[in-house]
Amino acid sequence: MGIAIRPAQPGDVPEILALIKALAEYEGAPEAVKATEADLRGHGFGERPYFHTLLAELDGQVVGFALYFFTYSTWEGRPSLYIEDIFVRPAYRGRGAGRALLAACAKEALKRDCMRMEWQVLDWNQPAIDFYRRLGARHTAEWLPFRMGREAIEVLAREDK
Amino acid sequence: MGIAIRPAQPGDVPEILALIKALAEYEGAPEAVKATEADLRGHGFGERPYFHTLLAELDGQVVGFALYFFTYSTWEGRPSLYIEDIFVRPAYRGRGAGRALLAACAKEALKRDCMRMEWQVLDWNQPAIDFYRRLGARHTAEWLPFRMGREAIEVLAREDK
Repeated sequence: MGIAIRPAQPGDVPEILALIKALAEYEGAPEAVKATEADLRGHGFGERPYFHTLLAELDGQVVGFALYFFTYSTWEGRPSLYIEDIFVRPAYRGRGAGRALLAACAKEALKRDCMRMEWQVLDWNQPAIDFYRRLGARHTAEWLPFRMGREAIEVLAREDK
Repeated sequence: MGIAIRPAQPGDVPEILALIKALAEYEGAPEAVKATEADLRGHGFGERPYFHTLLAELDGQVVGFALYFFTYSTWEGRPSLYIEDIFVRPAYRGRGAGRALLAACAKEALKRDCMRMEWQVLDWNQPAIDFYRRLGARHTAEWLPFRMGREAIEVLAREDK
């Protein structure tokens, strides 16, 4: 049957959470995942989901996923498709599932007339970096990603009257 | 009257586009802005906007803006607030408008129970980097931002059956 890509349904949430945890483990942060099935069900489905999920199946078995949402480029005046997670279980690599997931994301991006797809990759993940470059993506090295955690957010929010 | 922060209305679109262009100029890319007033009106207002905008007023005059949207952290199982643009016109700096915009973003982040606020800063913008660090944000240097442009997206999308 080969590789097939399909949108996730609410019934896939346990599998999605398992993939998120497998990705976190691959990224060296197995305890980082605080998300629950209830979180993903509430936030990823229904009328106004925060994210969308595509599943890659190999011979009918889920072997990977891409989780994305739409951001916005004020330079382009168009939404962008941002890939939060893309992952194929190590045992099933080399058979085109990652590329098929990215191609399906690209198709979704065109449906919304996006001018860009964006994501982040860990600096030690050279196979992924090489793969993305071969597909025509580039590291926007002049832009530094910044993050503020909950504690600092709470302190800052108190300044707002 | 001092600084006041308010959500933008559709009537503010010409001012928002002027601020987007002023920011692009400050960033050394004055010709990068292809967005039109119609784009911003269609994408930033109504039932399902792609983005939200806060305006900073000083003595009743718009002097800066923050443009943000909600992304999603699969580790936290919560939305994150992502700041696409934050800018105060150079002539009006040093009076707290930037900090007030960030504080208002922090308050919006808490309303959605976000665990993170995220953004990107240009690597030469040391005053901004220092400012963000003082507020408790950090450069997530291990994550490299990648971007794929429209042409590569179109090529890739053709692979998806």
